[in-house]
Amino acid sequence: MCELLGMSANVPTDICFSFSGLMQRGGRTGPHKDGFGITFYEGKGCRNFKDAQPSCDSVIARLIKDYPIKSCTVISHIRQANRGNISLENTHPFTRELWGHSWTFAHNGQLTGYQKALPIKYHIPVGQTDSERAFCWLLDQIFERFGKRKPRSMKSVFRFIASRCEELRALGVYNMLITDGVYLFAYCTNKLSWITRRAPFGEATLIDEEMTVDFKKETSANDVVTVITTTPLTGDEHWHKMLPGESVLFKHGERLKA
Amino acid sequence: MCELLGMSANVPTDICFSFSGLMQRGGRTGPHKDGFGITFYEGKGCRNFKDAQPSCDSVIARLIKDYPIKSCTVISHIRQANRGNISLENTHPFTRELWGHSWTFAHNGQLTGYQKALPIKYHIPVGQTDSERAFCWLLDQIFERFGKRKPRSMKSVFRFIASRCEELRALGVYNMLITDGVYLFAYCTNKLSWITRRAPFGEATLIDEEMTVDFKKETSANDVVTVITTTPLTGDEHWHKMLPGESVLFKHGERLKA
Repeated sequence: MCELLGMSANVPTDICFSFSGLMQRGGRTGPHKDGFGITFYEGKGCRNFKDAQPSCDSVIARLIKDYPIKSCTVISHIRQANRGNISLENTHPFTRELWGHSWTFAHNGQLTGYQKALPIKYHIPVGQTDSERAFCWLLDQIFERFGKRKPRSMKSVFRFIASRCEELRALGVYNMLITDGVYLFAYCTNKLSWITRRAPFGEATLIDEEMTVDFKKETSANDVVTVITTTPLTGDEHWHKMLPGESVLFKHGERLKA
Repeated sequence: MCELLGMSANVPTDICFSFSGLMQRGGRTGPHKDGFGITFYEGKGCRNFKDAQPSCDSVIARLIKDYPIKSCTVISHIRQANRGNISLENTHPFTRELWGHSWTFAHNGQLTGYQKALPIKYHIPVGQTDSERAFCWLLDQIFERFGKRKPRSMKSVFRFIASRCEELRALGVYNMLITDGVYLFAYCTNKLSWITRRAPFGEATLIDEEMTVDFKKETSANDVVTVITTTPLTGDEHWHKMLPGESVLFKHGERLKA
């Protein structure tokens, strides 16, 4: 399996603290040593950092931990390979263009019979994972449903994605993060938690590394920052544990009603 | 304008030496301070590093200079903005999937009247540059000409790309690098040079930084490494200067006949 990490914020925020915890699970406190990736959005643009090395030893992971890249939307993934060998093309997150926006996707879980169940036409996988296949199938489905033009209501797109995730969940374990850079959507099969931090900010301590942050010193009063992750990264805060089949949608750190 | 750098090799090779020269032109020895990007292929996968900061000051550029990522195909670009503001979505290279392969593209030059002259259907630009528009148009053209399946002869695809580059050249200055990860294709309007290094290897000295490398110590006897760049990076080697309207195609470092 793998671990997911997502962030949605109303001001550009660095993810160094959360990523410091996650990267330890990539070979040190967790077994997810088969590569990692992280995608940061800055405006409409995004940048991906990937490595097929364990994140706990990766020079690139260390750069991300130490160099505060500020972003409103982030998706990260550390991999424990099941479908598809250890290689860069099989390393999440995956990014593809749709409607003139870069969409980014990461998956935790494992699907069975997916090649037959998930026919694809337009978006062809580069690697061999069930995850990229699911992403390509989702994009195909969105494209077939909504056509070439981005619809006015993005909420309707994410409602549609949630309905398709139900189909994917029938094939196995399917925990997923997806974003168009503005909205961050999460779907849970069995393991996903989230937290929204806002004023009054307090302190938090990582579970996977000896590190405490005082968010009061790092933020201003109006900041709203949501973090979604496979299992909570801190031990002294209240995380919302998602239920099987549950989905959540965030924009600028705030949860939106479906 | 901007500067381009490409590499095609028959064994995974690091580009630290060439990139050390190029990054100096991003704000120190050259005016190309409006961001930089580099894409490395490893198998079918690739990773992009981008920064909207000048490459000469960028923490990420320093990582690439110091951390030898080995690759058979690389495209890099340092930007001096003309069309499109300074931002991540306008930073080359651009990568898109076609036929289950990641295609990467970078452009040096400036086009006029391109929005009318380059209609697009399937591949929608994320940013505002003439360059990304040209890339999307090229992909559309390839898709319309060859359809959903990768043709058996990739040479015919690159001959077709060359013919379309003629049309782009009619709109202004159009120096371009494009790759599917295996083939590296370059098209010249006014400024592009290349060199193929093979045994017997010698020494080379950068023009833009005090740095000399003895390729004998860095290579083995069968290595073939081609570097393509806007202007030569070394002063003590023979570079092939390309002619207006000329194109070259490389695979595993070797030049292929059209």
